[in-house]
Amino acid sequence: MSERAEAERLDAEDPLAPFRERFVLGDPDVIYLDGNSLGRPPLATRERLTRLLDQWGSELVGAWEDWIDLPVRVGDLVGRAVLEARPGETIISDSTTVNLYKLAGAIIATRPGAVLVPRDEFPTDRYVLEGLARTYGREFHEFDTDRIEGPVAADVQRAAERAGEVAAVVLSHVQYRSGALADTTAVEAAAPAPVIWDLSHSAGVARAGGIGLAVGCTYKYLNAGPGAPAFLYVREDLQAGLETPLQGWFGQHDQFEMERAFDPQPGVRGFLAGTPNIPALVAIEEGARLTEEAGLDRLRAKAEALTAYLVELSEDWLAPLGFELGSPRAAERRGGHVSLRHPEAWPICRALIEVEKVVSDFRGPDSLRLGLPPLYTRFADVHEALERLRELVASGRHREVDSARKRVT
Amino acid sequence: MSERAEAERLDAEDPLAPFRERFVLGDPDVIYLDGNSLGRPPLATRERLTRLLDQWGSELVGAWEDWIDLPVRVGDLVGRAVLEARPGETIISDSTTVNLYKLAGAIIATRPGAVLVPRDEFPTDRYVLEGLARTYGREFHEFDTDRIEGPVAADVQRAAERAGEVAAVVLSHVQYRSGALADTTAVEAAAPAPVIWDLSHSAGVARAGGIGLAVGCTYKYLNAGPGAPAFLYVREDLQAGLETPLQGWFGQHDQFEMERAFDPQPGVRGFLAGTPNIPALVAIEEGARLTEEAGLDRLRAKAEALTAYLVELSEDWLAPLGFELGSPRAAERRGGHVSLRHPEAWPICRALIEVEKVVSDFRGPDSLRLGLPPLYTRFADVHEALERLRELVASGRHREVDSARKRVT
Repeated sequence: MSERAEAERLDAEDPLAPFRERFVLGDPDVIYLDGNSLGRPPLATRERLTRLLDQWGSELVGAWEDWIDLPVRVGDLVGRAVLEARPGETIISDSTTVNLYKLAGAIIATRPGAVLVPRDEFPTDRYVLEGLARTYGREFHEFDTDRIEGPVAADVQRAAERAGEVAAVVLSHVQYRSGALADTTAVEAAAPAPVIWDLSHSAGVARAGGIGLAVGCTYKYLNAGPGAPAFLYVREDLQAGLETPLQGWFGQHDQFEMERAFDPQPGVRGFLAGTPNIPALVAIEEGARLTEEAGLDRLRAKAEALTAYLVELSEDWLAPLGFELGSPRAAERRGGHVSLRHPEAWPICRALIEVEKVVSDFRGPDSLRLGLPPLYTRFADVHEALERLRELVASGRHREVDSARKRVT
Repeated sequence: MSERAEAERLDAEDPLAPFRERFVLGDPDVIYLDGNSLGRPPLATRERLTRLLDQWGSELVGAWEDWIDLPVRVGDLVGRAVLEARPGETIISDSTTVNLYKLAGAIIATRPGAVLVPRDEFPTDRYVLEGLARTYGREFHEFDTDRIEGPVAADVQRAAERAGEVAAVVLSHVQYRSGALADTTAVEAAAPAPVIWDLSHSAGVARAGGIGLAVGCTYKYLNAGPGAPAFLYVREDLQAGLETPLQGWFGQHDQFEMERAFDPQPGVRGFLAGTPNIPALVAIEEGARLTEEAGLDRLRAKAEALTAYLVELSEDWLAPLGFELGSPRAAERRGGHVSLRHPEAWPICRALIEVEKVVSDFRGPDSLRLGLPPLYTRFADVHEALERLRELVASGRHREVDSARKRVT
């Protein structure tokens, strides 16, 4: 398993291997294991953005005839590619933060009770819900879950029993640090209130079966570029009666009839708010097309295979150097990244990037996070990265880097 | 005045004339008078976006070291260029709609009373405030103003007296249809509550003296591209105690220390929310640099001169064809666009675009809106456009176009 030939054999058998050539690959000596923070640029996106700049210059405001439906058209594509959603259930709009605010606000306005969020939920989700709870005069409950195995249905059920009446539960499908994948069906069955899923770390690497409400970002496994807008999903049967607290003109029925009171478009379109950013929308379209073409089955299978390969190498090579697995041990319980815990994780991460050219990131207090996007990560990349990591830590050279450096990702 | 030589003389004397060559100009036969909806692409923006795509591909997630401060750095630039704001008073974030929601929500949370908005305020502003008023259990008052001269201090004062206690007033600096410019100093003096200004139609063509709170868009006179994010401004002395209802991780102090409760950055930075779109931010930076370089004095002088020239030609040529001025008659009371009212404004607008290649837009019920961005509009363009418009309407050919077409701008 630890021979390079094994990695090469796995790559040769990988049905997704040809997708790698459809991305900008840059310096061949760099191993990029942070696509779960920011995906690589697809080649098609470069061409598409150049065409878009031409269109802006030549058609000017008239190009809006082509652009006006993009939030819905690209929303449908993203919904289909990552959620097997039907048309009319997904839009692209704003950031994940703003979309979560709109969707959770809509739910809270229609139901009494507390808001439940895991204590180790991605920070922006906790901040959004804490603010909404205050605005609506609700209790905000943060509940504990297993730090590595992540939120499970039993945690949600226990938290709900303690809270009494519950308005909404917010949960990441894949936990940002450990990569733990929640069992959506079990959580939906256990939750006494609507569950809003944050799919940021799972969209493009895992299925979220049986969910009704979701938001998620497009710049990770969907490769739409830094800070590209997010998606918002409401299953058809849940759309009636849900109204965004943040009412904007792109959510308005007949938006150019400007004299009227707010009268939202039916369904998920009512959650559109301000004028959408068009360059970002076409970048999302190109990124999501690759995900759709690859298909969730193959993406999921490769995500499991890549993370399993990393975990096996890590047991062989890194456990003796003080690393512990910070992710679930069962492949079917992981998203697309793996965390390795080590008391010196921060200087190791810095040295791994600066000296070894293996791009990863750090998540406190002690996790080195390695992302393995299945569209462009090779098994040989995993092998080479872990070899460099082993040599780095074995030599102690990670203690020589300047680890006072400010974290920005 | 109606001779073409006069227009050419004015262009020859125009100190801003050289800026025109710094934009993508496209088909020389098209006269673009809709830059108040969507500005033209600056040449520098094309180059900058190409470099950004290269940076994304080569530096990948590491480029965030360069990007992380863009919302504040570009915010400071925009604030300086359009508001003579000091550093730390302006950010770029989200859309105008979302920024208005955050800023008005922050004000309303700290003050009792009703929310006041002119009945003919830009729709998204009315929708935002109506929603906020409902969420916070406040009265939402729409007040009448003169349809052409726009909101004046006396209208605000009267509306406030009728409302009793007032939490906030929201007002466009330049009215989207008539182009009427509000007297910011007089309104600030008359208002019994904080005034939140929407500078979307004035940023880059008019000064907003003495204001304390504003939002505004960057894709009009700042030429940042379709749906580019918006700015949010809070004068330094008003920042203490203002907290956004929409709490996101970019507003968090030490955002990568992920375990803590929400603890917003001081001042206007606390209004940052989700991950910002980086391509849009660099496009705003390039656009705003041109505005800063041109300078507000020269931009304002040229906006007045261009609109005055259009009004004079219109009196000579178009009044006999049934057109009436739908904008203030005094140049110092206008922003950067002029509205001409005509009972057949909608088919005239369609034919003007499709047959005469003069790009303008329609605003109900009867306004043809002509935008004259001072950075790239020539006096000769105004002359030629009005000549084509006169010939079109005199010939009656505007009755031959398909005016059933759906409006999308």
